[in-house]
Amino acid sequence: MKLIRFGKAGDEKPGIQTPEGKMLDCSAFGSDWSEEFLGDEKGLKSLSDWLEANASSCPEVPKGERLGVPIHKPSKIMCVGLNYSLHAKESGMEVPKQPVLFMKSTTSLSGPYDPIIIPKNSKATDWEVELAIVIGKKATYVSEEKAMDHVFGYVLHNDVSERDFQLNQGGQWVKGKSCDTFAPLGPYLVSKDEIKDPHNLRLWLKVNGKTMQDSNTSDLVFNVPQLVSYISQYMTLLPGDIISTGTPAGVGMGLTPPTYLKEGDVVELGIEGLGISKQEVAAYKG
Amino acid sequence: MKLIRFGKAGDEKPGIQTPEGKMLDCSAFGSDWSEEFLGDEKGLKSLSDWLEANASSCPEVPKGERLGVPIHKPSKIMCVGLNYSLHAKESGMEVPKQPVLFMKSTTSLSGPYDPIIIPKNSKATDWEVELAIVIGKKATYVSEEKAMDHVFGYVLHNDVSERDFQLNQGGQWVKGKSCDTFAPLGPYLVSKDEIKDPHNLRLWLKVNGKTMQDSNTSDLVFNVPQLVSYISQYMTLLPGDIISTGTPAGVGMGLTPPTYLKEGDVVELGIEGLGISKQEVAAYKG
Repeated sequence: MKLIRFGKAGDEKPGIQTPEGKMLDCSAFGSDWSEEFLGDEKGLKSLSDWLEANASSCPEVPKGERLGVPIHKPSKIMCVGLNYSLHAKESGMEVPKQPVLFMKSTTSLSGPYDPIIIPKNSKATDWEVELAIVIGKKATYVSEEKAMDHVFGYVLHNDVSERDFQLNQGGQWVKGKSCDTFAPLGPYLVSKDEIKDPHNLRLWLKVNGKTMQDSNTSDLVFNVPQLVSYISQYMTLLPGDIISTGTPAGVGMGLTPPTYLKEGDVVELGIEGLGISKQEVAAYKG
Repeated sequence: MKLIRFGKAGDEKPGIQTPEGKMLDCSAFGSDWSEEFLGDEKGLKSLSDWLEANASSCPEVPKGERLGVPIHKPSKIMCVGLNYSLHAKESGMEVPKQPVLFMKSTTSLSGPYDPIIIPKNSKATDWEVELAIVIGKKATYVSEEKAMDHVFGYVLHNDVSERDFQLNQGGQWVKGKSCDTFAPLGPYLVSKDEIKDPHNLRLWLKVNGKTMQDSNTSDLVFNVPQLVSYISQYMTLLPGDIISTGTPAGVGMGLTPPTYLKEGDVVELGIEGLGISKQEVAAYKG
C-alpha cells in the first residue's frame, strides 16, 4: 500500500495512491496515518478491506493538491550518520564501527514538493537523499532476527543539512539538521510488503537536473534490521517513528570546492519503489 | 498555577496543585495540558476562571495516586550541555562559547516518582538535576528581548545520562540520554508568573540522602531568554516543548573515582519553587 496525506500543511487528510497511480481521498476510512493506525497489526488489512468495498466511491485527490508528510505526528526522527562508506570518506570521517545516531526535530518535516527554505545566516545548506524506515510496532531491545517485525515500511527522505550549523557551532549535529523544511518526506509511505529487498534499491538526487548522488542501498554499512535492533538497545521506537538510514556519496560538502544550495535551485530525488520528490530552494523571508 | 497529571502511565488525567498543596482532578475542565492548551494565550485564564467556579466540586486526587509527566506529548526535549562552568570543568570540557544542544527522545519521559531503570549493558548511569523551560508560544527566530513571551513556565527535570553510551559509543550524545525512564519530569509544571526570577533558584540533588549537587541557576552560562532565542534560530519550538538548561557540578562522572547509580539507590532532587521529585533505581528486567 502507498499511503499519502494531502491538503494544507497542518491540516492534511489521509489518502492512498493506487497501483494505477490514482490518488484517493480516504478521509471516510476514519483514521489518519498516525501512531495508532501504523501500530495496529490489523490496520493495513482493515484499510485494504475498506478500500475493496469503498474505493469506487472515494473522491480522487484534486489535481495540483499539495502532498504533505505521509505520517501524522511521528514522535521522533532518528538519523544514522556516515552509513555509506564513500560518504564517510568525502566527509573526512572514518566508517563508524557502530551506527552514529543523531536526531532531527520533527518540526523540520515538510511535504515532498514543499520548498526548502534556506535558514537565516546559512552558509552551507546541503542535500542528502536517504532511505527512511518507518516503525510499525513498538521496539525496545529487539533482536536483529525480529527487527523486521517492527518495520511498517519505507519512505523517501531528503535529510537537508546546514553544514556550518552542524559542524562549526559547538558540537552535536542536531543544530544543522532541524531547521524548518529540512525534512521533506514522501511522496508516499510504502508498506514493507511492496519492497522486496530494501537492501537493493537505487537512490539518486539531482540539483538543477545534474546528478549529484547515485548509489544503491546495497552499499549501506548497517542495514535495516541491524539499525532497528541497534537503536532499540538505546531507546524505545514507537509506531510512526522515522529512522533515516544515511546518505551516499555526492553531497555538496564533498565537492571541490564545496557547493551548497542557493535560492532558485531545484532538488529532485528518488528511490526505486518509493517515488520521486522535488523541492525548489527559497531564501528565508522574515 | 501548578499543573499536574496523574494516573496510570499513558492514561494520565490533568489536575492542579492548589497553593495549599491539595491536588485536584481537573478532568472536567475538558483539556489536557497539551500543545493546544499550553499554546493558548487564554488557556491559563480560562482554567483559573473555571477553577474559581468549580474547584470546590473537583475531586481530590486519591492519596498514593501516581503522578505522571505534567505535559501531554511534548514534541521534543532539547537539552543544553555544559551550561554551568563548574560542570564543564568536571566533565573535562571547556565552557562553550555557544550553547551545546542535544536531544533526548520523548520516550525517555517518566513521572517524578517513577523508578529509574538502569538500561541493559549500562556501566555508568548518572544523575543531573536541571531547570527545564516549557514553551508556551511557537518560537522561530525570536529575539532575546521577546523570548520570555514564548515561555509558559518551568519544571524540575532529572536528565539521567548513561555516560558510556553518551561518550564512548560513536559520537553524538543522544544514545546516552534517551533510554526509557531517563527523563523524570515534575512533580508539576509551574507557570512563569509564579517564578519571580528563574535565574536565582537553588537546585540540588541527593543520592541515598547524601547531597551530590547543590547550586543556583544564577550560575547558568546561558540564561533562559538567551537559550530560547538561540535555539529558535536553528529550529521551531512548539508549545509544550521542553528545554532542559543543563546541570551544575556534582554528577557521578565528576567524582574520584567516578560513581554511578546502582539498583536500590534513591535519587531525590529539587528546585526552589518547582518542588521535589524522587526516584528509586531499579535494574532492567527483560
